[in-house]
Amino acid sequence: MNQHQKLKIVNDPIYGFITIPNGLIYELIEHSYFQRLRRISQMGMSYLVYPGAHHTRFHHALGAMHLMQKAVQVLRLKGVVISEQEEEGLCVAILLHDIGHGPFSHAMEHSIVNNLSHERISLLFMERLNSLFNNRLTFAIEIFKNEYPRKFLNQLISSQLDVDRLDYLRRDSFYTGVPEGAVNSKRLITMLNVVDDKLVVEEKAIYSVEKFIVARRLMYWQVYLHKTSLVAEQLLVRVLKRAKELTNKGIELPASDALLFFLKNPVSVDSFTDEMLVTFSELDDYDIISALKSWSKDEDYVLQNLSKMILNRDLLKIKLKGKPFSQKKIDQEKNEFISRHKLSDHDASYFVFTGTVSNQAYNMEQETINLLTNRGKVIDVAKASDQLNLEALSKKVVKYYLCYPKSNY
Amino acid sequence: MNQHQKLKIVNDPIYGFITIPNGLIYELIEHSYFQRLRRISQMGMSYLVYPGAHHTRFHHALGAMHLMQKAVQVLRLKGVVISEQEEEGLCVAILLHDIGHGPFSHAMEHSIVNNLSHERISLLFMERLNSLFNNRLTFAIEIFKNEYPRKFLNQLISSQLDVDRLDYLRRDSFYTGVPEGAVNSKRLITMLNVVDDKLVVEEKAIYSVEKFIVARRLMYWQVYLHKTSLVAEQLLVRVLKRAKELTNKGIELPASDALLFFLKNPVSVDSFTDEMLVTFSELDDYDIISALKSWSKDEDYVLQNLSKMILNRDLLKIKLKGKPFSQKKIDQEKNEFISRHKLSDHDASYFVFTGTVSNQAYNMEQETINLLTNRGKVIDVAKASDQLNLEALSKKVVKYYLCYPKSNY
Amino acid sequence: MNQHQKLKIVNDPIYGFITIPNGLIYELIEHSYFQRLRRISQMGMSYLVYPGAHHTRFHHALGAMHLMQKAVQVLRLKGVVISEQEEEGLCVAILLHDIGHGPFSHAMEHSIVNNLSHERISLLFMERLNSLFNNRLTFAIEIFKNEYPRKFLNQLISSQLDVDRLDYLRRDSFYTGVPEGAVNSKRLITMLNVVDDKLVVEEKAIYSVEKFIVARRLMYWQVYLHKTSLVAEQLLVRVLKRAKELTNKGIELPASDALLFFLKNPVSVDSFTDEMLVTFSELDDYDIISALKSWSKDEDYVLQNLSKMILNRDLLKIKLKGKPFSQKKIDQEKNEFISRHKLSDHDASYFVFTGTVSNQAYNMEQETINLLTNRGKVIDVAKASDQLNLEALSKKVVKYYLCYPKSNY
Amino acid sequence: MNQHQKLKIVNDPIYGFITIPNGLIYELIEHSYFQRLRRISQMGMSYLVYPGAHHTRFHHALGAMHLMQKAVQVLRLKGVVISEQEEEGLCVAILLHDIGHGPFSHAMEHSIVNNLSHERISLLFMERLNSLFNNRLTFAIEIFKNEYPRKFLNQLISSQLDVDRLDYLRRDSFYTGVPEGAVNSKRLITMLNVVDDKLVVEEKAIYSVEKFIVARRLMYWQVYLHKTSLVAEQLLVRVLKRAKELTNKGIELPASDALLFFLKNPVSVDSFTDEMLVTFSELDDYDIISALKSWSKDEDYVLQNLSKMILNRDLLKIKLKGKPFSQKKIDQEKNEFISRHKLSDHDASYFVFTGTVSNQAYNMEQETINLLTNRGKVIDVAKASDQLNLEALSKKVVKYYLCYPKSNY
Repeated sequence: MNQHQKLKIVNDPIYGFITIPNGLIYELIEHSYFQRLRRISQMGMSYLVYPGAHHTRFHHALGAMHLMQKAVQVLRLKGVVISEQEEEGLCVAILLHDIGHGPFSHAMEHSIVNNLSHERISLLFMERLNSLFNNRLTFAIEIFKNEYPRKFLNQLISSQLDVDRLDYLRRDSFYTGVPEGAVNSKRLITMLNVVDDKLVVEEKAIYSVEKFIVARRLMYWQVYLHKTSLVAEQLLVRVLKRAKELTNKGIELPASDALLFFLKNPVSVDSFTDEMLVTFSELDDYDIISALKSWSKDEDYVLQNLSKMILNRDLLKIKLKGKPFSQKKIDQEKNEFISRHKLSDHDASYFVFTGTVSNQAYNMEQETINLLTNRGKVIDVAKASDQLNLEALSKKVVKYYLCYPKSNY
Repeated sequence: MNQHQKLKIVNDPIYGFITIPNGLIYELIEHSYFQRLRRISQMGMSYLVYPGAHHTRFHHALGAMHLMQKAVQVLRLKGVVISEQEEEGLCVAILLHDIGHGPFSHAMEHSIVNNLSHERISLLFMERLNSLFNNRLTFAIEIFKNEYPRKFLNQLISSQLDVDRLDYLRRDSFYTGVPEGAVNSKRLITMLNVVDDKLVVEEKAIYSVEKFIVARRLMYWQVYLHKTSLVAEQLLVRVLKRAKELTNKGIELPASDALLFFLKNPVSVDSFTDEMLVTFSELDDYDIISALKSWSKDEDYVLQNLSKMILNRDLLKIKLKGKPFSQKKIDQEKNEFISRHKLSDHDASYFVFTGTVSNQAYNMEQETINLLTNRGKVIDVAKASDQLNLEALSKKVVKYYLCYPKSNY
Repeated sequence: MNQHQKLKIVNDPIYGFITIPNGLIYELIEHSYFQRLRRISQMGMSYLVYPGAHHTRFHHALGAMHLMQKAVQVLRLKGVVISEQEEEGLCVAILLHDIGHGPFSHAMEHSIVNNLSHERISLLFMERLNSLFNNRLTFAIEIFKNEYPRKFLNQLISSQLDVDRLDYLRRDSFYTGVPEGAVNSKRLITMLNVVDDKLVVEEKAIYSVEKFIVARRLMYWQVYLHKTSLVAEQLLVRVLKRAKELTNKGIELPASDALLFFLKNPVSVDSFTDEMLVTFSELDDYDIISALKSWSKDEDYVLQNLSKMILNRDLLKIKLKGKPFSQKKIDQEKNEFISRHKLSDHDASYFVFTGTVSNQAYNMEQETINLLTNRGKVIDVAKASDQLNLEALSKKVVKYYLCYPKSNY
Repeated sequence: MNQHQKLKIVNDPIYGFITIPNGLIYELIEHSYFQRLRRISQMGMSYLVYPGAHHTRFHHALGAMHLMQKAVQVLRLKGVVISEQEEEGLCVAILLHDIGHGPFSHAMEHSIVNNLSHERISLLFMERLNSLFNNRLTFAIEIFKNEYPRKFLNQLISSQLDVDRLDYLRRDSFYTGVPEGAVNSKRLITMLNVVDDKLVVEEKAIYSVEKFIVARRLMYWQVYLHKTSLVAEQLLVRVLKRAKELTNKGIELPASDALLFFLKNPVSVDSFTDEMLVTFSELDDYDIISALKSWSKDEDYVLQNLSKMILNRDLLKIKLKGKPFSQKKIDQEKNEFISRHKLSDHDASYFVFTGTVSNQAYNMEQETINLLTNRGKVIDVAKASDQLNLEALSKKVVKYYLCYPKSNY
């Protein structure tokens, strides 16, 4: 008697409930590789600015899967045929699209595992899970790699208006408490359609699409690239580089086995073995923060001080502007610091450094966001917008930052 | 013993509670002129598209007053001196800024009371209330008319970033269920400051200001100028014009006394007597809808059919585009209708007509929105924005519409 | 090519979007009988206390239909078979369940159409629509009358945990800005199931059910029976009674034809003709408020003053307590008023009167709310609750009110 | 020129913005003792059920301080005199009230630091900070210890309706996505008053108070004592006990220095030195999770398996009921497990165990929640409620749980 059947549901402050669609997906979620995502913060160091931003990759992956189910439901109501298998493939692919993220989401990629993107590692995880799950992920992997014949399926996972973005912009806006960045995921999904194997948005959603692009831009500059998060992120990258430097000199630093492995061994796409993947699967935010806590008592001045800065949120100062900083300005800050602390130039450069950040709100060179007009034509949103200058928004904005210690440090 | 003192508060789904600051304001709210605003819908005919949009001018006026109190509080915390009297003036002025609105907010202005703006009538009401309240509104009137020496006070009431807009965009977005139009009023108000008697916004709110401008634009095109609202609004204007036309021919139409008065008598700024103001104060949405209900059985074809269209939401078709409609197209639609119903050209033009709507997201020629940079300089937000092309948004967008009956009508 | 197919959707601030499931329902919504509900306020006079409470029966009916669609979806996922025809019947029945409401939802029932419940009139409308729509409403009517074999379908429409309540509690809480009354409709619906043709709730939702009962109780006492709404509602009932009294004496009052009809003619279940139904379909809030506006200038003291009280929110005082008021207290208030204004006892009793209000948070004698335990047993929620004394909540609470004029009136 | 003054604000998804009131509080927040709270999860293991529940003690402390500022503002508007110094004392006391929490909020108290409540440790931190901050916390400490003459100040911090509860119920409900538990903090605070040095709530808030009590009860049983959180919490307590047991046997386990210290050394109120406090200040969630990750590879069967269960959310089964479990049932489960894994009875008891949880929604024996009636009398809310049986809610509910391994474990 199947009337007592229950739905597997997860509470979500944003969507109310997320339903786990089937047994395969339930088992994937239960797997330790996926459970690890509970220990990977979605927004890296942003919680130092937005104390609510402690949500995880685990939650985002579930949220994106929820939106995927909605998208499939809407498309089917509009007459787009999507098979059960294709739906499962979509759900699995989006669920696992970020499984390759390392601690604090991006810091690892820029310090230790620096030759390997998280997308690449996600794929390695998917392939490994595929063999553990009797090839039931083959469809998902094809869609993920965009090797599946129906191209709009991949667009749902990875394009300028995919469910990944629809979830993370909404979720990050929610947890940070920056409502300006909220995206009306529901409306946008309700307006999706497919024409000639291309994902399109109905014309009347044009203002929502514009709003989506502007909201995304706002989230980048106000939140993701917030000065304080930026300096904290850079400090994290640098403390890991320092640890690697010391390790390479033969110094035995306190750290978890998994972290030590990656401090000691260079990795690359070609040499990334299954064993390395298992070690990688043991790495998460807790390894990093625990290491910082130990290192904050280390005798190495650089390691100790960078660690303490992050832990106690006693960060470097940062300036952000539209043009590069003069070498003179940089040298001045560095020399002051050197003279205060008798450091080598190399060591001081951990505390005084410059760099760039950039963002492109809309990319006209990539596959564009397409509108379906009331007359049935498909056009690029940038050409349909009567006023909001999407060409301007398509320009890449670059900003230059300079980090340096407070004068009393 | 004043510990048992209670606050006068009003529940508001948006802000939680609105506090009535003092006795004068409480009495103004209790006055029948202000209570009338409970019967004036804030968004005219928009409820035909957005069924939740039944909120009133009464509620908006209270909401704007609430934001004014918050703005005063923020500015004082930042060291801007605002006297008790100035605060009361601000609250009274914003409370009464829309008291001159006629039924359905704008339809009257474009049909019957067509030489008189609602702002002008608001002022007449304020002056009348001033004499009823022993000149306690003098300050408010000075601020409202921008005759008060401190100019930033007027900017809080009427500028491109005033509390009026901050409330209505938020409120209209809330009641329509169009979250893309929501404005973070709280953040924007928290970022206000005053420099050299000018209202400014702190630089770090630049993305919020941009978002505010884009949200406003979205609300105009997606909501206020939504095709269906637009056609309903135009039908309402036309049914009132027709009623005026018939009345002027000596036909006695069923309508309330107040409505009949304005159907019969032309009004103008100079001839607007106190008696007319009292009659005007008796007019509200209920006079109009009740008249439509009677007129929907009238023997005049035009009056009857326009009335029924609005009541039963069985509207004209509408096309909207960037260029004017050709006379040929207009004539074709009109002639078809004429031949179906044996109407005169004049009468048919109540059912087939064209016109324009326009909106300017940001007006660079008006007093601009000013940013206060971190270095203490004051600059126009349009010049500070690094990418969002505010000059483009400053261009006036004009659209042309053509309304005509369904083919089976 | 069906890929361009569009969904008919309506914006809703609560659920985001409401989808119109099919053509029949779309046509029913377009019918003038249903469009009339746009002019029937959901919460009667409550907007005098909660200025946001201007939502309509139209919106509630759509909202309840939306929840019905969700409920059907959840039950199907749990293996409960519901045919397309049954689903349509459910949607039509819930859409039309309130179509028989008169102006201000309840005032008519207690003054003019006082022998006829709105449920009865809803049924008359459904039957009339059934003949207009070629008997396509037969299923819906059977379910509505609980004559359909599968009884749980009727429970979805009318029981202590039906989608009607799930929508109106949520909606009323939303528009009044009383978040304590919000009900987690989504969670409750997700927990529904059917056992032996009975609607049940999964055991783990027990706290949500309790919360639902407590929230409902709160909404009654804090909102629906708020002192100020109560007195306004009573004034409205009395002004209509007075109008009827005067009309019966042969006095011709200004009012719409439809209102005049019901002022003049007594109605009863047996004598309610199709013609009367059509006249009833022309009555809405606008007839009442417009009449009040005319009557506020009437020479009859009672009619005039009651009308003005409502329009200007200058109401009677009201006391509310757990025991009846002594006759002495009532006489005292009445006599004072009589001596101030030289009124007859009969006329004065329009201004000084007493009555009762009552509410039962949970009714143990009706069909109960049933829980499905983890072991598959079905039990009454009142017996499952370990602590919240539902027996106490099942006690009918009666309160006595006394209304009388302010001392300076 | 102080017009360029800026407010120190923190984004909060719940209240919008939290303002840091002054320099002292800013410095306290910057102190590493307080920054540590960023690494203490507010809801312990609850994120295993509610993936959004990753908010921290840091955020809760700021939120409670925000509500305190609102409460002071409301009371002052009602004529209650509160000095600047008293306000600062209130803000500091509430900010630091939870600073003594150990990792995962409660697990430590029940395993390692088991003779010392977190309130006691909070006080030790406050005293230490007081000496570091030149006795500027003296007022706060007096209020916190309830030694300050004006007793209502302590009630704001610690009573059955304090700002602590008003924040955490709201916040936990928000982050878990359990809206039924949301408390209308704003309304309750707006209704506060002080009579005879006692905190009271205005009578008309009675339904909100009832709702608050019911919401709190719901949060306990549905969220805080959710079966899955409960078993995870118990596993955490047991893994720490096991670690202590092994350590006491002389086995050197991998763990941070701070954690090792508390595994090795028994602590008590009398022997808690300043040095221990500093070590305690180095302990947070990261020490625990990192230890679990190491221990999940330990050779000790118990330590290894309990650790893996938590990390991979592969928990014990749990049954919860109103009566104790029979010894027979417990033995049966334990013996099965022993026979499957050849464990000692002692070791098996880490996997098969029983216990109780209890909650009292309202405590009539403690200082009650007082209502201020319209006539100015002060009465216990339990006596004022006409129907909701608060005596029933005042009964302590005890539930018994039995945890045991899955049959295939």
